[in-house]
Amino acid sequence: MLVTSTSFRVRYAETDAMGIVHHSSYIVWFEEGRSHYMRELGFPYSRVERMGYYFTVVEVQARYIVPARYDEEVAVETWISELKSRGLTFSYRVRRVADGTVLTEGYSRHVCITRDGKIARIPKELRQLLLTGTASEG
Amino acid sequence: MLVTSTSFRVRYAETDAMGIVHHSSYIVWFEEGRSHYMRELGFPYSRVERMGYYFTVVEVQARYIVPARYDEEVAVETWISELKSRGLTFSYRVRRVADGTVLTEGYSRHVCITRDGKIARIPKELRQLLLTGTASEG
Amino acid sequence: MLVTSTSFRVRYAETDAMGIVHHSSYIVWFEEGRSHYMRELGFPYSRVERMGYYFTVVEVQARYIVPARYDEEVAVETWISELKSRGLTFSYRVRRVADGTVLTEGYSRHVCITRDGKIARIPKELRQLLLTGTASEG
Amino acid sequence: MLVTSTSFRVRYAETDAMGIVHHSSYIVWFEEGRSHYMRELGFPYSRVERMGYYFTVVEVQARYIVPARYDEEVAVETWISELKSRGLTFSYRVRRVADGTVLTEGYSRHVCITRDGKIARIPKELRQLLLTGTASEG
Repeated sequence: MLVTSTSFRVRYAETDAMGIVHHSSYIVWFEEGRSHYMRELGFPYSRVERMGYYFTVVEVQARYIVPARYDEEVAVETWISELKSRGLTFSYRVRRVADGTVLTEGYSRHVCITRDGKIARIPKELRQLLLTGTASEG
Repeated sequence: MLVTSTSFRVRYAETDAMGIVHHSSYIVWFEEGRSHYMRELGFPYSRVERMGYYFTVVEVQARYIVPARYDEEVAVETWISELKSRGLTFSYRVRRVADGTVLTEGYSRHVCITRDGKIARIPKELRQLLLTGTASEG
Repeated sequence: MLVTSTSFRVRYAETDAMGIVHHSSYIVWFEEGRSHYMRELGFPYSRVERMGYYFTVVEVQARYIVPARYDEEVAVETWISELKSRGLTFSYRVRRVADGTVLTEGYSRHVCITRDGKIARIPKELRQLLLTGTASEG
Repeated sequence: MLVTSTSFRVRYAETDAMGIVHHSSYIVWFEEGRSHYMRELGFPYSRVERMGYYFTVVEVQARYIVPARYDEEVAVETWISELKSRGLTFSYRVRRVADGTVLTEGYSRHVCITRDGKIARIPKELRQLLLTGTASEG
C-alpha cells in the first residue's frame, strides 16, 4: 500500500489566538497531503481536473491529539483507505517531524464528478493506478 | 433546547478553483456558529477565555451535501448536542437562506482546558447556562 | 459620493498567535467591503462575473493602525477613489464599531478583464452606475 | 546582501472561483518568505518571540503581475530593504519556478514591539545579524 509523506513548516497565519495552529488549518494540510499523494502516484490532481473530473469532498473528519505550533516542521502521511468505482477515501496522519509525535488523524471522503456536477466512474487509467496504491502487499 | 442561527454572505476568498466554497471554510463557519451561540446564551466565548478557560477542539466532522457559492447568504444553525462535566459537542446545520436548502451538517467536540493545557471542569456558572440551552422542553 | 459600510464580528480563525487579527484577514475584509459596495450600488459583483467580466486585483495596500481582536464588531467603509475606463480603485477604512477607532486603512486597484484574461472596458451600464457612486455631491 | 528563496506548491485552498490563487494568499506567502529569511539568518522568528519581541506589521503592499495556479511550484525571494533601530522592511518577489516568471512583488513594514505593545529597539544581538544580511557587498 502506498503511503506518502510531505512535510512543511507551520505558517504564522495558520495559528490562532490560543497560540496554536487553528483546527481548520489541518483540513487544508490534509488536502495538501492528497495533492502530494496524487503527484507521487504519477497522476497529479491538476491532471484529473484537466480531464474534466473532480474529486468533490463529501465528508471530512479530524481528531486533534496534540497541537502544532508556529515554525514547527510537520509531516502529513496520506493513504487511500477505501476505493470504490465512483469515489474514494483518503486517510491522514499529521506528525511533528522533530519527534514523530502524532498531532492529528483524519479522513476525507470524495465522490468523482464531472464538470456539470454529475457523479461519474473514476476514469479507467486513473483507477488502475489508484488500485496499485491501495493494494496490500502480500 | 436553544438553537441559534446566524447568517452572512459567502466571501469570495472562501471559494476555490471549483467555483464553489472550499470545504475548509465551513469549519470556520461552524466556529462562527458556536461563537454566535455563546453570545446568544449570554456568555460570549471571549469571556470564557478571559476567565482562563478554553474549549479546545478535539474532533470535527462535516458532511457536504450541496455547495455554497460566492455572494449567497448562508445561515449556520447551532445547538449543543452533548454536555459533559469537562466538555461538550456543538452540532451545526448550514442552510442557503434563499430557499432553506441544507448545504452542510457537522459537529465539533470540545474539551474544557485551562491556560496551561490541563483538562478542567466547565466553570459552574457557565455550566448552569449551558444546561439551560441543552434542556429539552417538555 | 457613495460610501458604504458593512459590519461583522471578528472570527476566531482570523486571529493569530499574537492574540490579534492576522494582517491577511483585513485583505479579505476589504474584499467583503467592495462586495457589499457593489450590492448597495445595485450591481452585485456576482452579476459582473455572470456577464463575463472580472475586476482582477492588480495591487493591494493596507496600513495597520490598531489591532482588532476576536469577537469585536468591526465595520468596513468602502468607496471608489478612482474610476477609469478599464479599471478602478476601491479605498477602505476599517473601524471598531464600539468606539469608532480606525483600525486599518487601505486600497485595492483593479483592472477589468474578460474570461480569457484580456483587459476590457467596464461595461457601459455598470460604468454609469459606478460614476454615480464616485460623483462628488456639489 | 542576503536574499533567501523558499519554494512550495500552490495549495487548492489558496485558489478562488476565478481559478487562480486568491490575492490574500500572497500576503501569507510573503510571511512565509520572511519566516524562511529569519531561519536562514540563524535567528528564527519563533526565537524573537520567545525573547519577548514581535515584528508587528504596520503596512503591507503587493502588486499582482501574473496569477499563480493550483499545483504550480512557486518561490518567494525575500530580502531586507530597510533596517531602522525600531523596525524594518522586508521586500518580496514571488516567481513561478518552472520558468522564472515574476508573479507578484511587494513589501511589508514592521515595527519592533514588546509583549505589552510598546515600541522597542530591535535587540542588539539580532540587529547585528540583520545588519549583516542587509549590508551591500562592496
